[in-house]
Amino acid sequence: MTLIVQKYGGTSMADADTIRIVADRVAEACRDHQVVVVVSAMAGQTNHLLELARSLQPVPDAREMDVLLATGEQVSIALLAMALKARGIDAQSFTGGQVKISTDRVHGKARITDIEEEAIRAALESGKVAVVAGFQGVDELGNITTLGRGGSDTSAVALAAALKAEECQIYTDVDGVYTTDPRVEPQARRLAKITFEEMLEMASLGAKVLQIRAVEFAGKYKVPLRVLSTFDQGPGTLITLEDQQMEQAVISGIAFNRDEAKITIMGVPDRPGVAFAILGVVADANIEVDMIIQNTGADGLTDFTFTVHRNDFQQALSLLKPVVGELEAREINGDDCIVKVSVVGVGMRSHAGIASTMFKALSDEGINVEMISTSEIKISVVVNEKYLELAVRALHRHFGLDQVTAD
Amino acid sequence: MTLIVQKYGGTSMADADTIRIVADRVAEACRDHQVVVVVSAMAGQTNHLLELARSLQPVPDAREMDVLLATGEQVSIALLAMALKARGIDAQSFTGGQVKISTDRVHGKARITDIEEEAIRAALESGKVAVVAGFQGVDELGNITTLGRGGSDTSAVALAAALKAEECQIYTDVDGVYTTDPRVEPQARRLAKITFEEMLEMASLGAKVLQIRAVEFAGKYKVPLRVLSTFDQGPGTLITLEDQQMEQAVISGIAFNRDEAKITIMGVPDRPGVAFAILGVVADANIEVDMIIQNTGADGLTDFTFTVHRNDFQQALSLLKPVVGELEAREINGDDCIVKVSVVGVGMRSHAGIASTMFKALSDEGINVEMISTSEIKISVVVNEKYLELAVRALHRHFGLDQVTAD
Repeated sequence: MTLIVQKYGGTSMADADTIRIVADRVAEACRDHQVVVVVSAMAGQTNHLLELARSLQPVPDAREMDVLLATGEQVSIALLAMALKARGIDAQSFTGGQVKISTDRVHGKARITDIEEEAIRAALESGKVAVVAGFQGVDELGNITTLGRGGSDTSAVALAAALKAEECQIYTDVDGVYTTDPRVEPQARRLAKITFEEMLEMASLGAKVLQIRAVEFAGKYKVPLRVLSTFDQGPGTLITLEDQQMEQAVISGIAFNRDEAKITIMGVPDRPGVAFAILGVVADANIEVDMIIQNTGADGLTDFTFTVHRNDFQQALSLLKPVVGELEAREINGDDCIVKVSVVGVGMRSHAGIASTMFKALSDEGINVEMISTSEIKISVVVNEKYLELAVRALHRHFGLDQVTAD
Repeated sequence: MTLIVQKYGGTSMADADTIRIVADRVAEACRDHQVVVVVSAMAGQTNHLLELARSLQPVPDAREMDVLLATGEQVSIALLAMALKARGIDAQSFTGGQVKISTDRVHGKARITDIEEEAIRAALESGKVAVVAGFQGVDELGNITTLGRGGSDTSAVALAAALKAEECQIYTDVDGVYTTDPRVEPQARRLAKITFEEMLEMASLGAKVLQIRAVEFAGKYKVPLRVLSTFDQGPGTLITLEDQQMEQAVISGIAFNRDEAKITIMGVPDRPGVAFAILGVVADANIEVDMIIQNTGADGLTDFTFTVHRNDFQQALSLLKPVVGELEAREINGDDCIVKVSVVGVGMRSHAGIASTMFKALSDEGINVEMISTSEIKISVVVNEKYLELAVRALHRHFGLDQVTAD
């Protein structure tokens, strides 16, 4: 009997009714597999605890915050184990410490350093389902740590890797990974398969089905990941290594991100240290930078453009205004009415002409491209936010993503 | 610097406001003492979790129930540690497993078998307040166990015993132990001191300030216990060993219990095995019996009377009806409109005439005594429930409990 790891998030553990549905899913899997289930805190629970903590200590102590938040998953494992037992399925819950899942000492965003298999193996061998608290571990002193929000995906993948599971199934409230957001393009299709690399590009661009760290981890340890819906039947989307069949698809999906804003410093003297002078100030304020573009100009001056999250736009602008003077640059301007649209696909490596197809599709719709950035399996453009839906739909159509393919 | 253990119950940990008050109390104690704080789950939290569990599994699995309920105290320790840190007091939380508090394997009502001192001592030596989750421990396999409801008092006393604390302070929503319930007798006074034995009789008779197990434990290990209010200033009531001064008071208090019902089997043949035939049936149904009275009769027949909780009255009656036939007894009858009223005091040992004073007081008020039972430091009577207030007030006055004495 092969082993699978299933992970259920907060919306699947919302209340007694959804927990019973989760128990049904686990029961199905039990017929053919040994099953380890990883669960998140009940939806809303974590926010409630955060609020309480902040009302007592505006910046809550990191160690105690982990003690507090870890209770959310502990509630979930107990309740799911009960729901399984009520269905006649033997089950045993495990906190992170009981497994044990060892981490470093960075409270709030700890990294898993080791997973002991013995206790879980013993439960599985005695015919039990092991129900494990996601998101949490213990450091070498026995302090409770947490992996940061969404860390339950990482827990599940790490357990699957440690236990050499056949598959790690991430159950969520969508039935798979789509070619693009169906709310923008009704013709969007669920993908039967996608590579880890593509999933990384899709996830980081706003298709928030899976945590990036979990996908990286799964890719590194070659754990096949599957995204499925708790509430609908269906095979979901398998995230796996590149194979022959997959090379046929040139583009897997169209990702986009509405949260971007761009800042341009124009007429910057083109000399070493300029990029650092600009981005150092931004990084020191813990503002994350996404795209960075610099073109060499003809007259020893250059324009330097980058994008940040819209929430950080005003702060970044005011931090940089003095820098413009120091650099003797001409001026700074910004625009927070932009979006980023990307085509993603491993097929891009072996097929020429993706970029030209993309730019033609946008040009045909009269959409002006303000920035371009490329990676090995992705081409991103920045356009005015009013063009978002138009651009996504045009690209989806031009790359044939609306064509039905078999699972 | 001496060490004290403080324990705060669920009503003291009700919300952020009351947790801040608890932090104030702990801060005061920190000036002169090393402090270990034991806390319960936030009021209402345990019931909420119980409800969830029962909706998933009508009789929830005992092991998983402990995993679930232990989260309540884990939330409390983290929040109180944060509240202390916000006040500039260094603190560290400890789950039962982190202390560690070892117990037997009886989920839901585990008994403490050992407490390791090292981790808490280390925290105290480094100037921290140790905030410990009450009510919970771990068995020798690392499974989470709970001590049963109210077990946080027991945790506090056990920690005080293990750490040889100067005093174990139980903070609650009343400011001490009273000579009787002030809602029945407005002249009731707070006792400055009471012995462990008296407290046991008071607690088991319905003065539910402290858990009986905690008082037993404190008496056994000679840990001075003090009951105080979280919300009012005052010295509370010290529960301690009998001393010279205390012998002056003959009676410490009047306890009563409204939850009693009595059952009498009349005309029972007076032969060995009769009591077992009757009480065995009741015990097998997990019905607890309080008072038991049997008088030998003249004609080889006797009347056998006992009291049970009112909730168990109907069940006990119907269980016993067939037994009446088997025993060839005359008849069975019952009354669930009775109450038990007791006078309690260690002084009873050395003073004659307590009983006669008691019966005269009741007789003067025209109160008929239906049952009498005595122990070394207690005399209990059963009367019709309509006489409860009258009986308590009469006894309170007759034994001079309304006289003010110095703390």
